[in-house]
This record gives sequence, C-alpha cells and structure tokens, in this order.
Amino acid sequence: MDETQLIERYFRTLGAQRADVSLGIGDDAALLRVPVDRELVLTTDALVEGAHFMPGASARSLGHRALAVNLSDIAAMGAAPSWMLLSLVMPEVTDGWLAPFCAGLAALAKDHDVALVGGNLARGPLSITVELAGLVPCGRALRRSGAHPGDALYVSGTLGDAAAGRLGADEASGPLLERFEYPTPRVALGQGLLELASACIDVSDGLYVDVRRMLAASNCAGRLDVERLPLSEPLRSAERRLGWPAQHGVRLALTGGEDYELCFCAPPAHERAIFALAASLGERVTCIGDVSEGTGLSVNSSNPELCAALEATGFDHFRR
Amino acid sequence: MDETQLIERYFRTLGAQRADVSLGIGDDAALLRVPVDRELVLTTDALVEGAHFMPGASARSLGHRALAVNLSDIAAMGAAPSWMLLSLVMPEVTDGWLAPFCAGLAALAKDHDVALVGGNLARGPLSITVELAGLVPCGRALRRSGAHPGDALYVSGTLGDAAAGRLGADEASGPLLERFEYPTPRVALGQGLLELASACIDVSDGLYVDVRRMLAASNCAGRLDVERLPLSEPLRSAERRLGWPAQHGVRLALTGGEDYELCFCAPPAHERAIFALAASLGERVTCIGDVSEGTGLSVNSSNPELCAALEATGFDHFRR
Repeated sequence: MDETQLIERYFRTLGAQRADVSLGIGDDAALLRVPVDRELVLTTDALVEGAHFMPGASARSLGHRALAVNLSDIAAMGAAPSWMLLSLVMPEVTDGWLAPFCAGLAALAKDHDVALVGGNLARGPLSITVELAGLVPCGRALRRSGAHPGDALYVSGTLGDAAAGRLGADEASGPLLERFEYPTPRVALGQGLLELASACIDVSDGLYVDVRRMLAASNCAGRLDVERLPLSEPLRSAERRLGWPAQHGVRLALTGGEDYELCFCAPPAHERAIFALAASLGERVTCIGDVSEGTGLSVNSSNPELCAALEATGFDHFRR
Repeated sequence: MDETQLIERYFRTLGAQRADVSLGIGDDAALLRVPVDRELVLTTDALVEGAHFMPGASARSLGHRALAVNLSDIAAMGAAPSWMLLSLVMPEVTDGWLAPFCAGLAALAKDHDVALVGGNLARGPLSITVELAGLVPCGRALRRSGAHPGDALYVSGTLGDAAAGRLGADEASGPLLERFEYPTPRVALGQGLLELASACIDVSDGLYVDVRRMLAASNCAGRLDVERLPLSEPLRSAERRLGWPAQHGVRLALTGGEDYELCFCAPPAHERAIFALAASLGERVTCIGDVSEGTGLSVNSSNPELCAALEATGFDHFRR
C-alpha cells in the first residue's frame, strides 16, 4: 500500500465531519473557519515508543491515548476541541496495527467532535504526534495563572489508577490498566469550569508536580490535604491485595502521573455550583486543599515520611 | 538540564513576537487570535532520521528544514504563516546540537514572522515535527484543484538542485548542497499568487509527481515541456564536470524532489502580471507547460527514453 492508499483507507474520513472544515485532508494544508467570538487553542503531545509506551503496547490504546492526552490539554483551557493533525512514524505498515490504532483514535475523535484534517506519514521508530486545535470564547480561557489566595483546590475523578495500572497492579486487564490505556479527558467539565474556576491544569505528570506548577504560575502558595485525595476502590483493593507499603496508593495518587484529571482552583462562593456542575455531568470532583499567599505547596499528612519524600520529588518527563 | 530549563534556554522566545498570541509557551495550550476576515491554515511535516536525513546531518540545517518544509505548504495555499508548535524527540540533550538547531529554526521563523507557541520534548530516536498555522483571506486560498483547461503551467526558482546536492554533486559544501540543506520556501510569491493563480502545489516529492497531483485534483490533463525546465548553472556545471549520463540533470529536475518551489496554473491573461510579481520579489518564474481537458500529464521531450522512464515513475514518500 502506498501513502495515498493508506490515507484513503484509514485516514480520509477519520473522526467527526465538521461544517467548519473548508478543506480537509488532501491538499498542502487544511483550511478551517474560526468563529469571530472564539480564540484558537493549539497544543501538541507525542507518544514515543520506549518513552511513553513499551514495544507491543495495544495499538487501539495508543490511538486513544494519542488523542486523549491532547484533549486533556484542551480541557484544561476550558476549550471545545475541533480539529487534529496526525504525524505518524511507523517501522512498517500492517493492517493488524493500523486498523485497531485508527479505531481507537476514531472512536474518541467522534465522541469529542474532532475532525482529522491533515498529517504526515513516515517510516521510522514508532512515534505518534497529535496536534489538536480547539475553540474558546475570546478572553475567557482557563489558565494556570489565575488562582487567588482564599481559593479552594479541586481535582476531578480519582488519582493514581493509571500509574498503578501501568505498573501491573491489576490481575489481567482490570480497571486500573483500563485507566492507563484509556484515560478519560474531562472535556465537558473543563468547558463548564469556564464560569467557575480561577485556574486550571491537567494532571499529566502527577498531582504534586502539576499543582506546584499551577501555584507557581499564579504566584500563590497552597496546601494539599492527603487524607482528602480521591482514591478509587480498585486502587485501595490492589493496595490491600498486593501488600503495598503504607500509603503507597497515596504516593501513586500524588506522583504517579498520567491521570489526565483536571486540577483547578475556584473561589469558595463557587463551591455549590462546582458540585452541581460535576453532578450534572456524572463526574466526581473533590476539594483537596486551598490556596494562600506566598509560594510553595505544603502537604498535610499524618505521615511525616511521605511529606519528606515529596519535598525531594522532582518530575522531569524529558529525563524519565 | 530538565525540560523546564531546556524550554527556558532554547525555546521560550524562539521566533517572532506577535501581537496575536494571547498566550504562548508555558500553559497547557496556546491561545491565538484569528482575524475575522481570515481562514486558519494548518499543516504538519516531520523530519525523521533515516528517512529524511542521515545520522550526523547538520543541526542548523535540520532546524531550517523542519520549518521550511512547512512554510512551503503554507506558501502553496497563498497564506501568511503565523504560529508553530515543535515536537522534538532527541536521543540526548547536548548544547552542541540544540544551539545550532534552534539558531537555524529561529532565523527562518523570524524571517517569516512565525512565533513558536508550544511543543513537546521527549527522549527517543531523533525526529522533528513542526506544526505550522497560517492565515489567508476567507475563501481565497489557493488549492490544488482550481486549474482549468487553457491555463499555463509555471514553476518558481530552479529544479533538481536539492536532489543533486543531497547526492553529493558539489565539491565540498557548494551551492547545490546549500539548496538541499537550506531550501527557500516561496512564501511571498504564494501570497502574491492569490490574485493570479488558479491552482498551486509545492514541489516536495518531485515536479513530475506533484504536477500530476495538481492536475488530478483539478480533473485536467497537462503537458510539460522538458526543454523549458529551469535548471541552475551549478546543476548544469555539475552535469558537465561529473560526466553524468544524458539528461541526468533534467531527470533530477523532474523527479529529484525537495525543491520546495511552487508549481502553479494561471489563465493566459495573467502572464504579464505573474512575471511582474516575480520580478518585484526578485524571484524567478518559468512557464513550463499548459493545462488541457482530459487526464494525465504528457511530457514533451526530444528524448524518448526519458519519457518512457517517467511513465514508469511512481513516487511514494512513505516507501522511500
């Protein structure tokens, strides 16, 4: 199969069909229409074999994750996703890999009304780069930098599941591995938070590191209550079953990463509206701390060892 | 150096500073303002070690080429480039590579008023993916599909130089290698052609293949006069010096690729204006054939072998 045939078979109609695509795949570039009252939101994230996944990883999961990690960035801005480009480097073309990869990508793209409008295919070591565009009301996007002293700190969903799944905490393919392979970007929640949150970040590198980033961008300090972290029943169950050391589940929740939950700040007056929004979407949201004047993130825990370990924590995705 | 330090040192202020960037590098995504009378143009192209360049390729050249190949796509739409994202996968971080890479990228970005607004760094086999956005007056972009019977067929610059340079036709680092390592995207020419051309494509895979693509998209046939192809003096000189077989320079011009010139169609009435535009920009433009009813591309040449060889030519960038 040559490149043109590949594009026809797998990519030409991948994702949603959108009326704002003037010209999609097949020319030198795509042409898109941005409504007058919207700002354009652009992000890119890549999955590289050896860095983000191991050889033999599920192709369907890779198709899902490649888009999900970008949707999570768009969600953190409070934006609606719209168009994607796909740059795919593959060692060889096999139907057995491309069919499930595209199925995973297409299913999530259709769920979020994202159209594939261009891309690039090349031969080489497997890596998948998605560039995702979104739209947000002008001047209204959520940023990391908007938190104020007095705000409450929230997180969506549960934390640590993906890291536990990646580390093999499930028996066979259980709910934790599912959370690693098929993360759920909180796109509708992010859009709902446009009216309610003061700052937002997506939890990709681990809650502890990502909260510190949001606080630093906002020139604020913060406090995080470890006892309030949302841990799932499958994670607690794995913790018991596998005889993990004390607070290992909590450590994964704080530093495991790849949760793709939203962490956000909001004034106390918005508390009721935030929980109402979450309930309307069937999402879980938990208040896990608060924001104050100053710098740095303190962690409230009855376990002093945990606090000391966190102080020493850095996370560097590039070094990993 | 961790990822944050890398970004601060090399990428934070790379390229032009633009007033339409509401939020650049440093958040979950970038925020950009698209003027009401403009459509958004999006493209992506990647350089992968082993496929598009060999180990040990000049880092400065890679920085230039990674953006130039995308600028050429934007030029082919008649658009003005605006913002880029960079997804860089590197086996290791060394100042000796990153400094010249960023210098090559930054110089071209500033020349074309392109701001780097986001990206991604990961560890792995070297590959460089740029996503480039541009802006074009609504409904006015050049496409491959607009050619009409009776149009003349033009190409910018000279052809075959980059292929000859890649194949080592220069002594040391001469003008042909320069054309391979530092291609010149015809951005201003493309914008000028908005008023004049009926269809346009950039010559990346070789003139013969790319003209066929434009004709196929336009549902037209075409004729290409081999004797009119613009060959540079350095290419003709290399042909004599190296004792190439007959018409080897012409073959490179037809099928060598990586020229990043613009090939376009225009009604005969626009001929004078096209040459005036080219002269005003200091660009060379040559009429190399014409468009007719039907399908396929015929090649006029006094050399029947050349015509037969071309008939058998396919080009598949993915297979290469």
